[in-house]
Amino acid sequence: MRILTFLTSSIPIGHTFFTRLTRSSSSLPLRFRTTTTMAASSSSEDSLRKALSEKLSEVESQGNQVRSLKKSGAAKTELDAAIEALNALKLEKASIEKDLQATISGDDGGSVNKEALRQAVVNTLERRLFYIPAFKIYGGVAGLYDYGPPGCAVKSNVLGFWRQHFVLEENMLEVDCPCVTPEVVLKASGHVEKFTDLMVKDEASGMCYRADHLLKDYCKDKLEKDLRITSEMAMELKEVLSKLDVLSAEELGACIKKYGITAPDTKNPLSDPYPFNLMFQTSIGPSGVSTGYMRPETAQGIFVNFRDLYYYNGNKLPFAAAQIGQAFRNEISPRQGLLRVREFTLAEIEHFVDPEDKSHPKFSDVAHLEFLMFPRDEQKPGQSARIISLGEAVSSKDSKIVDNETLGYFIGRVYLFLTHLGIDKNRLRFRQHLANEMAHYAQDCWDAEIETSYGWIECVGIADRSAYDLKAHSEKSRVDLEAQEKYSEPREVEKLVISPVKKAIGLAFKGDQKKVLEALEAMKEEEALKMKTDLESKGEVEFYVCTLEKKVSINSSMVTISKEKKKEHQRVFTPSVIEPSFGIGRIIYCLYEHSYYMRPSKDGNEQFNVFRFPPLVAPIKCTVFPLVQKQEYEEVSKVISKSLTASGISHKIDITGTSIGKRYARTDELGVPFAITVDSVSSVTIRERDSKDQIRVDVSEAASVVKDIAEGVRTWADVWSAFPHHSSGSADE
Amino acid sequence: MRILTFLTSSIPIGHTFFTRLTRSSSSLPLRFRTTTTMAASSSSEDSLRKALSEKLSEVESQGNQVRSLKKSGAAKTELDAAIEALNALKLEKASIEKDLQATISGDDGGSVNKEALRQAVVNTLERRLFYIPAFKIYGGVAGLYDYGPPGCAVKSNVLGFWRQHFVLEENMLEVDCPCVTPEVVLKASGHVEKFTDLMVKDEASGMCYRADHLLKDYCKDKLEKDLRITSEMAMELKEVLSKLDVLSAEELGACIKKYGITAPDTKNPLSDPYPFNLMFQTSIGPSGVSTGYMRPETAQGIFVNFRDLYYYNGNKLPFAAAQIGQAFRNEISPRQGLLRVREFTLAEIEHFVDPEDKSHPKFSDVAHLEFLMFPRDEQKPGQSARIISLGEAVSSKDSKIVDNETLGYFIGRVYLFLTHLGIDKNRLRFRQHLANEMAHYAQDCWDAEIETSYGWIECVGIADRSAYDLKAHSEKSRVDLEAQEKYSEPREVEKLVISPVKKAIGLAFKGDQKKVLEALEAMKEEEALKMKTDLESKGEVEFYVCTLEKKVSINSSMVTISKEKKKEHQRVFTPSVIEPSFGIGRIIYCLYEHSYYMRPSKDGNEQFNVFRFPPLVAPIKCTVFPLVQKQEYEEVSKVISKSLTASGISHKIDITGTSIGKRYARTDELGVPFAITVDSVSSVTIRERDSKDQIRVDVSEAASVVKDIAEGVRTWADVWSAFPHHSSGSADE
Repeated sequence: MRILTFLTSSIPIGHTFFTRLTRSSSSLPLRFRTTTTMAASSSSEDSLRKALSEKLSEVESQGNQVRSLKKSGAAKTELDAAIEALNALKLEKASIEKDLQATISGDDGGSVNKEALRQAVVNTLERRLFYIPAFKIYGGVAGLYDYGPPGCAVKSNVLGFWRQHFVLEENMLEVDCPCVTPEVVLKASGHVEKFTDLMVKDEASGMCYRADHLLKDYCKDKLEKDLRITSEMAMELKEVLSKLDVLSAEELGACIKKYGITAPDTKNPLSDPYPFNLMFQTSIGPSGVSTGYMRPETAQGIFVNFRDLYYYNGNKLPFAAAQIGQAFRNEISPRQGLLRVREFTLAEIEHFVDPEDKSHPKFSDVAHLEFLMFPRDEQKPGQSARIISLGEAVSSKDSKIVDNETLGYFIGRVYLFLTHLGIDKNRLRFRQHLANEMAHYAQDCWDAEIETSYGWIECVGIADRSAYDLKAHSEKSRVDLEAQEKYSEPREVEKLVISPVKKAIGLAFKGDQKKVLEALEAMKEEEALKMKTDLESKGEVEFYVCTLEKKVSINSSMVTISKEKKKEHQRVFTPSVIEPSFGIGRIIYCLYEHSYYMRPSKDGNEQFNVFRFPPLVAPIKCTVFPLVQKQEYEEVSKVISKSLTASGISHKIDITGTSIGKRYARTDELGVPFAITVDSVSSVTIRERDSKDQIRVDVSEAASVVKDIAEGVRTWADVWSAFPHHSSGSADE
Repeated sequence: MRILTFLTSSIPIGHTFFTRLTRSSSSLPLRFRTTTTMAASSSSEDSLRKALSEKLSEVESQGNQVRSLKKSGAAKTELDAAIEALNALKLEKASIEKDLQATISGDDGGSVNKEALRQAVVNTLERRLFYIPAFKIYGGVAGLYDYGPPGCAVKSNVLGFWRQHFVLEENMLEVDCPCVTPEVVLKASGHVEKFTDLMVKDEASGMCYRADHLLKDYCKDKLEKDLRITSEMAMELKEVLSKLDVLSAEELGACIKKYGITAPDTKNPLSDPYPFNLMFQTSIGPSGVSTGYMRPETAQGIFVNFRDLYYYNGNKLPFAAAQIGQAFRNEISPRQGLLRVREFTLAEIEHFVDPEDKSHPKFSDVAHLEFLMFPRDEQKPGQSARIISLGEAVSSKDSKIVDNETLGYFIGRVYLFLTHLGIDKNRLRFRQHLANEMAHYAQDCWDAEIETSYGWIECVGIADRSAYDLKAHSEKSRVDLEAQEKYSEPREVEKLVISPVKKAIGLAFKGDQKKVLEALEAMKEEEALKMKTDLESKGEVEFYVCTLEKKVSINSSMVTISKEKKKEHQRVFTPSVIEPSFGIGRIIYCLYEHSYYMRPSKDGNEQFNVFRFPPLVAPIKCTVFPLVQKQEYEEVSKVISKSLTASGISHKIDITGTSIGKRYARTDELGVPFAITVDSVSSVTIRERDSKDQIRVDVSEAASVVKDIAEGVRTWADVWSAFPHHSSGSADE
């Protein structure tokens, strides 16, 4: 799967050729993260494990020594020396254990910090209703979340910007297709057969688990908490972890048996792993005979409409279609909060292009961009992404990394999209899929991965999927999904013509003549050319007829093979598709982590939460409050609020009597970028959230200043230099 | 069901108290439409049927007369006269038949015109990809449609305006909840039990039909095509039609039997009608034991979040929450194209308000509005909606129509919303639900109905649903969903206190004492007050203990009943909810019909299709084309296109060599309001779609003029008076 599948998965290895449908691709970031960490520390970890195991046997043998000295009634000095040596060895052992523990649990307590950061972010998000576990009053459902008011506004802003940045800028054809999808469509796409995870069942209770999750938990637990496993065992477990997502059902089952893994909740034995289809199934219409599924992605809706969309575009290539909508995946056991959910919003683009010309007219607009890229060949232990110029990545002759300009163009546009939203460019990388991660038909594939407290998260997949999807639907539906290139003038082409001589063949092969005839006609160009040469030189050749399962002898009286010139007016072909696919919920979660910070109150006794959302993304653009409770200030506030509403600027009035500092803190926590404080009836102050700088503006201008910044017409720096500054004095905090 | 359920339905009559869940409410517009038409013509139809039946017997008896004359060998003159009389009667019969046919098929051929209009609209919509039958290359699925590029843009514009008009203007809390919903939620709401239609099955083939559809088709067919049914039979069939949606399963079944209705496709016998639940069912998680449904409406997601949203709003009422999202209904056999579909977008508002104060501070903003309203008491045969002022409808003492100000406020806002989109105010009415259409708990309910070729279509439901939904979820989840009104100072209230004297009751009732005690404590206020009075006057009373199923004797030593004064600091109550609920797809379809017109080409030989969408709604705001193919014009076009993109204005460049008239026609058909024609490198013309007027504007200003009009900052009239006019000459058509 190209997107939204961060955790490791148990797709059998036999399916990995089918990247779109296997979920393996997604787990690689984690695998590599693990591998990289190991590379940095594994030599020391390894030697520490060896040292520990040596020290343990030294302690044991010294212990034996002490015991035998006691038994033999040795001299006190001798016994004391032996005991002293034993204690020294124990101390050394303890010291090695401590070092090993530190090495395993990760360097500098970073993982603890990450946990703490995540808790702080998640607490703020839940408390301020950015999201809410869905159906909370009924105990909730794993993997289903509501967006509360600020979360919903952020989502709406992200989607609005997506439409502007992609659909409008690129003149894409946006469509909107149903979620309920009949089985035939998802059979053609391969989802009915292959969109599975491997599952094991508690044989007594019937509880279900993802097989790879259990194996992963076992390995990690053993590696982290059991210091005394041998260095060899540690290597084996690490090897298993690195292969988790390519293990077959049989291999996974063998591991589970070997390590004696049982159901975590009951310790009951587990079934063998078997595939569970991740689509929500339903029935369309009342008869019960028409199976349907909730779509697992939005792309299929575009593919099945290719013909109409191509026509709508004036039968011209390239063009792109786009769709934003819900997608559904019935995860076996969702983990990781907002990152792996059972229902989510996807935004997908299918850019249809002539496979023989994947240049992009606007590539030069993005060629200058430089950012973290992680090419296939560099994904080795100890290596990490490095800054590469996109222009070089696509065009440089000897070190070309990205397959073609169109793919490169979209990588650049995705980079601009994400960083514009507020994703930290230092925690964003584009990772190329390894050859074994990609589908056999895929040309090239890159994931935009964002680093969070959970590690590197795959948020956007950008794949050149060649003609696979259109061909699959064309075959199943028997409707041509092709494009034509009309030649400006007819082209002369040489075609190979194979003309078997029926009479001669009939005489020679009697009852077999039909099969020989068909086999001759079905020859590929290369084979026919060779036969032509051989017949010309030898007059007779051996020819294998597969339907007869034997070779027959063909002579030059039986077939003429010639090259003829023909005029062609057009070329008919199945377009390639380049597919950028965005997991909107994941991008938003990453944005929350990247935007969050804490700042101390003035007295240093408190820590306040702040989200540094850019105005574009901020759920509320502005708060308006009277400095003190006073009727004329309240009226001014209402006047400003009314103009903001008329301009379409989301805002909030706060006329509670709370201190101004507390009110600022409340809006900072929602990521509101600006606060208008009414402290007179003629002019007001506007405060910027992160700098806490304030300017003084006429009442009549306040709304339009905020509108201009919110819509990107001006920046805070612009207005900072245009308006008088206001020193906050004691107002703020 | 308050929305999206236009056709008649077979909900058993026992359920009609449950309006939210029965689908009956929706069918009433149709019923009344039918009734009204009948009222206008039924007296003449009725007398024509009677006249026809009389004439038929006259023809018959005259025929007999002729035959007996022939038999008896009567004189030629006598026979001729009799034959002449017979022929005259036959002519009269034919004339009555013709009149009757005309009366039945409706007056002036209006229904034919409606059909033709619909076909023209639908053809244009399909050809230009406003919508596409979903999964078309696989033969499609009934009731599922895709929005193609222009349809998707219209939808996005309608939703954008909805957010501005409702969410932003009213400071609503927008949320976004999953479609997958666990069973418990929809059990609480009643959908699992009651959200059904009555279905019959072809007993041989298993094919399913909506029972009421078959009965309706039978009645209409009989009435329209069988002229010789008796006037009584005609009355009976009309009676059935008018009651279609309140017939029970048994009554429907009886009618189907009585009229001998069989399966339309096979003529096989049909099963008895039985309820079919309209929700798409699925299973959440891998175990198969957790049933889920695709939500049939978005409202429940808001109700279950009431507590958090109330807190988010600072524990203050009133406030409104809103949600836009997909809803799903597994219709038995979808008809009527885009009007009854299996998946659709709803936009719902739940406005929570103190049941004791439903005033609205902004009601005065809408009180002046006047539009077509159809109050409950006026929905009688022959009557139709009339123009009423909203202020009067809500406030006038003797003829108050709308229950409360908040309900009235939303009716007004919905009126403004719809007409602003381009719905014709003369084909929009607000119809009040009849008492038997509403749920027993509902306070009042109005539907915004829009007239189309299908008749009056329910597009928005605006209901005061009292506290029903919150109470249902509170009961099922055992979580309080209440609000508090804190008194500014404590209030003294009188409370009735019932204090049974345990000892005396124990002595008197022994083993029954517990049940007597409980029954006394459970007495309602009225009952207790009566007991108090009786005990005071008689010293002893008979008291029925339901758990004992008998009366016992209670005397004044056994219980004290007194009134005590208590101080209360707050009032705790379940808020009422006022719910405007919008069927977005229906509104859009109605908009298409209201916006469509045809205009002849200049030579009068062709008819061109035009959609007169307001700029707000138009899928593309502007086309840009060079007058003739010339490189410098193309470059100017691209410059203008670039500024339009930067301003976020959707547009299309057309550099094909087609004639300017054809290019205008192509964009008119997409409802593009403005066309910029580049006929020089310094200035261009901007043409308005409906008037075909053109102004001349500098190249540098063109984009911003279009932007201003598209965003409502200026009107066409404004720019018409500000810029020089351009006489189109031969360019246009």
